Amino acid sequence: MRITTVGLDADDTLWHNETIFRLSQDRFRALLAEYADEVTSSARLADVEARNLRLYGYGVKGFTLSMIETAMELTGGDPPGRLVAEILAAGREMLAHPVEPLPGVDAALAELSETHRLVLITKGDLLHQEQKLAASGLGDLFAAVEIVSEKTPETYARVFERHGSGADRSAMAGNSVKSDVLAALDAGGWAAWIPYPITWAHEEAPPPQGHPRFAQLATISELPAWVRALG
Amino acid sequence: MRITTVGLDADDTLWHNETIFRLSQDRFRALLAEYADEVTSSARLADVEARNLRLYGYGVKGFTLSMIETAMELTGGDPPGRLVAEILAAGREMLAHPVEPLPGVDAALAELSETHRLVLITKGDLLHQEQKLAASGLGDLFAAVEIVSEKTPETYARVFERHGSGADRSAMAGNSVKSDVLAALDAGGWAAWIPYPITWAHEEAPPPQGHPRFAQLATISELPAWVRALG
Repeated sequence: MRITTVGLDADDTLWHNETIFRLSQDRFRALLAEYADEVTSSARLADVEARNLRLYGYGVKGFTLSMIETAMELTGGDPPGRLVAEILAAGREMLAHPVEPLPGVDAALAELSETHRLVLITKGDLLHQEQKLAASGLGDLFAAVEIVSEKTPETYARVFERHGSGADRSAMAGNSVKSDVLAALDAGGWAAWIPYPITWAHEEAPPPQGHPRFAQLATISELPAWVRALG
Repeated sequence: MRITTVGLDADDTLWHNETIFRLSQDRFRALLAEYADEVTSSARLADVEARNLRLYGYGVKGFTLSMIETAMELTGGDPPGRLVAEILAAGREMLAHPVEPLPGVDAALAELSETHRLVLITKGDLLHQEQKLAASGLGDLFAAVEIVSEKTPETYARVFERHGSGADRSAMAGNSVKSDVLAALDAGGWAAWIPYPITWAHEEAPPPQGHPRFAQLATISELPAWVRALG
C-alpha cells in the first residue's frame, strides 16, 4: 500500500472553530460599539492579533489577551471594568465550548482507521486541543496526536517520519490551503483540501493548480475513497 | 546498559522560571497595593490560578489572564486602565524574558548526551517552551522534545516508550517532587530530584523516603555520575 498514514487537521476540519472565533469577534465589536465602528474594531483586533502571533502563538488564550489589548487601545487606555470582564468571559466560554464533530467526520474516520494510521496534526493551545479531542469522542480513532506550534514542511516531515513511513507515503487533509495543503505537499506528501465555509485571514492562500499529489474534496466523506484510490 | 534514556524537566531545572513568576507576582502586588494588602493579593491570585488551571493549563498566557481576573476582583470590578496595561506588559515581558541555562547545565547535558538519549519533558505553553529551548542553545543536545499538558505516570510511560526503551530503562531529572519524581517512579522509571530554591505551591510534595530508584542531587552537575552508576 503506497499510503500508510493519514494526517488530519482538527479545527474546522473535524469540528467548528472559526465560527466560534467569529461569534466572539461579533460580541467584541458589539461591546466596543460606543467607541468604534465595526470595521475599525475588526481591523484593530486583526492588527493586534498579527502583532502578537509571534509571542502568543495560536489559540484562545492569546486571542483573549489580544481582545483585551485592543479594547485598551480603542477606549483610550481606560476600558470600563465590565468590558474587560465580558472579554474574559468570552474567552472562557470559547475554551469551554462543546465540541461536536462536523457531519460525516465520524463515519469517514472510522472507515479510514481500519486501513490507515490516523494522526491528528493541529496548532493551538496544547491543553485546549487535547480537551477538544477528548470531548469529540474521536480520540480512539487516532494512532497519534501532534499538537504543533507551526505547520511547516519540516513539521510534516518530522511527524510522518515519527508516526508513519515518511511523508511520501502519507496524505494530509484539512481546511487550510497554506497550513494543511501547501506545507504537506512541500514535504513530499499528498494533500486533500476540504474547504470550510470561512477561513481565518492569516490562513488564506489560493489552492495549487494541477499538482499531481493534490485534490480538492467537497466534504470529508470523500476522503476515504480518495485515499484508497492513491493505492 | 540499563539506562538508555534520560528525561529532563525544563523550567527551574535547566533555566529559571519560578523566579520570573515571583517577580511578576511582586509587581502585581505592588500594582494592587492601594486595593489590598500583599497577603490578600497573593492569596486571591493563587485561588484564581487554581480555579483556572483546569481551563487554562500551565504557562504565562493563562497566568496573565488570571492576574487580570484577580485585579478585577480586588478593585471591585473596575480596575484603572493603566493597571490592566501593566499586567499585559508583565505577561509580555515574561514571554520575552531572556533564557540562560542554570550553572552546570551545559556541561552536564553535553556529557550525558554522549552516552544517553536525552528527552526534554515539560509543561507550559507550547510555543513559549519551544522558544525558550531555542533561546537556551541547548536544543541540539536533545533527541526529542515533549511538551505535555500534565505529567502523570501515563505521560512518562508513553514518552519513554516512544523515545526510549521503556520507563524501566529510563531516568527522569527535575525540580518538582510531584511532577518529575513521583510520577516517573510510578511509571517504573528512575528519578533524580534536583531542588530549585523555590517551588510553585501546586508542585510541592515531600520527597520519597528510601525508594530504591530515587536519588536527591545537590546540583545537575551530579546527574551524569548518578546515571552512569545505575549501569
